[in-house]
Amino acid sequence: MGIKGAVEKKLVGLADIVIRAAERGKDPSISIPVRALSNVKFNESKGIIEMGKNRQARTFFNVGMAKKFMQTMLVGDALAELQRADLTTSLREIYYRAKHTISDSHENTFDAQNESDPLIEDLEVALEALREELHVRAENAGTVIGPLVVEDDGDRVDCSRLGKGGYSVPSIVEPEYIQIKKCAADFVLLVEKGTQWNRLAEDKFWKKYNCVLLTGNGQPPRGVRRLARRLHEEKRLPVYVLVDNDPWGYYIYSVVKQGSINLAFESQRMAIPKAKFIGLSSEDPQTCGLPRNVGIKLNEKDISRAKELLNYRWFQKKEWQKEIKRMLSSGLKYELDALANKDFQYLTKKYLPKKLKDQDWLD
Amino acid sequence: MGIKGAVEKKLVGLADIVIRAAERGKDPSISIPVRALSNVKFNESKGIIEMGKNRQARTFFNVGMAKKFMQTMLVGDALAELQRADLTTSLREIYYRAKHTISDSHENTFDAQNESDPLIEDLEVALEALREELHVRAENAGTVIGPLVVEDDGDRVDCSRLGKGGYSVPSIVEPEYIQIKKCAADFVLLVEKGTQWNRLAEDKFWKKYNCVLLTGNGQPPRGVRRLARRLHEEKRLPVYVLVDNDPWGYYIYSVVKQGSINLAFESQRMAIPKAKFIGLSSEDPQTCGLPRNVGIKLNEKDISRAKELLNYRWFQKKEWQKEIKRMLSSGLKYELDALANKDFQYLTKKYLPKKLKDQDWLD
Repeated sequence: MGIKGAVEKKLVGLADIVIRAAERGKDPSISIPVRALSNVKFNESKGIIEMGKNRQARTFFNVGMAKKFMQTMLVGDALAELQRADLTTSLREIYYRAKHTISDSHENTFDAQNESDPLIEDLEVALEALREELHVRAENAGTVIGPLVVEDDGDRVDCSRLGKGGYSVPSIVEPEYIQIKKCAADFVLLVEKGTQWNRLAEDKFWKKYNCVLLTGNGQPPRGVRRLARRLHEEKRLPVYVLVDNDPWGYYIYSVVKQGSINLAFESQRMAIPKAKFIGLSSEDPQTCGLPRNVGIKLNEKDISRAKELLNYRWFQKKEWQKEIKRMLSSGLKYELDALANKDFQYLTKKYLPKKLKDQDWLD
Repeated sequence: MGIKGAVEKKLVGLADIVIRAAERGKDPSISIPVRALSNVKFNESKGIIEMGKNRQARTFFNVGMAKKFMQTMLVGDALAELQRADLTTSLREIYYRAKHTISDSHENTFDAQNESDPLIEDLEVALEALREELHVRAENAGTVIGPLVVEDDGDRVDCSRLGKGGYSVPSIVEPEYIQIKKCAADFVLLVEKGTQWNRLAEDKFWKKYNCVLLTGNGQPPRGVRRLARRLHEEKRLPVYVLVDNDPWGYYIYSVVKQGSINLAFESQRMAIPKAKFIGLSSEDPQTCGLPRNVGIKLNEKDISRAKELLNYRWFQKKEWQKEIKRMLSSGLKYELDALANKDFQYLTKKYLPKKLKDQDWLD
């Protein structure tokens, strides 16, 4: 039985709970891990953010839970339909699919999508199935180029033969859909900004430095993170994360590395604890000789965010404390784009080659 | 001389104006078409929004214009550098590149990107060169799949052999960079939402209906619009636009068709006056038997936007007035996602096949 059969079985299992309870005249109940900050912890030895063991029963014979129980079953039913028909869909369409007016009433099963989304997350953790395995996707939101061959729906896609445009990374890149056939690269460079990815693609950086270039145009979406993780895991490739020097850059890096607090459950299959931060670091502007006038003054939000990061368990390493404090004391943040002040190709011709040669990254 | 040489020559021409004026002891001056609503008109016969003929002189010996004149030259210089080095870059990097402190002062040439962006637009219209021809790009922001072969940087990219993922559409798809080698499709379907594009890709809609599937994940970016326009022009393909039934869907359609007021200059090479609106129309929810509870109540912003559209010259056709008024009188807008209420594949198996068969679109 493949993933598909296994997930369908888990979903059908939900209905079985209700049937069994009904047969015995009992209150049907499902046990759902608690998705709250109180049930999240940083696993120091694994280097990832994990969910704890707290669970909560969701029962039907309970005025406060009856509607949510019913809604959970409706979402489970829509998800089972996806499995049976071998389809994927969006969070929004699941909301629409599960929405109807309860007969002999004016009551809707769902009034807004913010009622169905959390239930999908509940089912992910309760059934221990990634959202992708539940066949829930977003739009394509990333691009990849480099010495990588994947198989997608029977097509052999050679990402080194797609010009400067590249392969559009689907939201779901699970092995059920995308198979990594070959990857001759030495590392993965995960680039925050799409425009910098274009600089690297245009300069054929991936060819010269034998790497896979990956971007998600900002905070990397799940598909991009999963692809990086799979390349790391299946092909043993180091992953370097290229972001701006600001608290949001640090944060993007930390989500790639340790996972996020909100989606702690995903970390075990999304996080890349060995990912390295290849900058921009708060030391780089000086090293590169960037003028201060291309720095941007930290605003209050930046400062309070940076102070928050200083307290996170996963930023306790000496180098990271130094990195963040140096940014705070300089009062400036720098975008990678600012390297263009030196030269349009400074990033590809000077900055990255030196970083790679010197292995100058933060862990 | 190719486009590249021609654009470089135009940019160098800017510097020549200054040199010639200096030699003659005159005030250097460049003539720039006025980019304002007052200088925009709808060309009824061409069916596109165009710029008028008003121009304004930008001179150096004028206290109010001297800084802007200097900045225009700096931006022109950065753009000329791109041409000479055969590089493309982002608006943001041009800002950084052109930024420096004027010697013996604390004055910056530019303080923020909102000072350089409009100057790039000024140069576009003054030099009659599309932003893309000036080598200014954004990130990749679209996806295409279907019976289309393009050449990108020497690679032959067959968009019918890229699984369900597809080719990531670059920001610049000018013939200088992307050549359309072959296109056996009967039409182009330009899909507003990425998740609907995924539904169509997953169901191999492009294969069954022999079309190119294109999306820009929302309001289509310039690269996606240019690619649709080129397929329309070079391969004589009709373009059908698939959007939500709300004022924003109408607007997206109208920008694809007539161009936008803000970028009236681009219309001549971006607009597709023969593009058709394939829905969702305000009649469709009833035709498809969608329950009213999957409609979304129009808010004040929707209503005032729809009333604005009713007054636009390009929405004066009887069918369009009827379409918009019907939405207003129903008080509801509908997303394409709502079709999932019927069936996850309603869009691909029922809605679009019927629309295409009946040629049921708005012009």
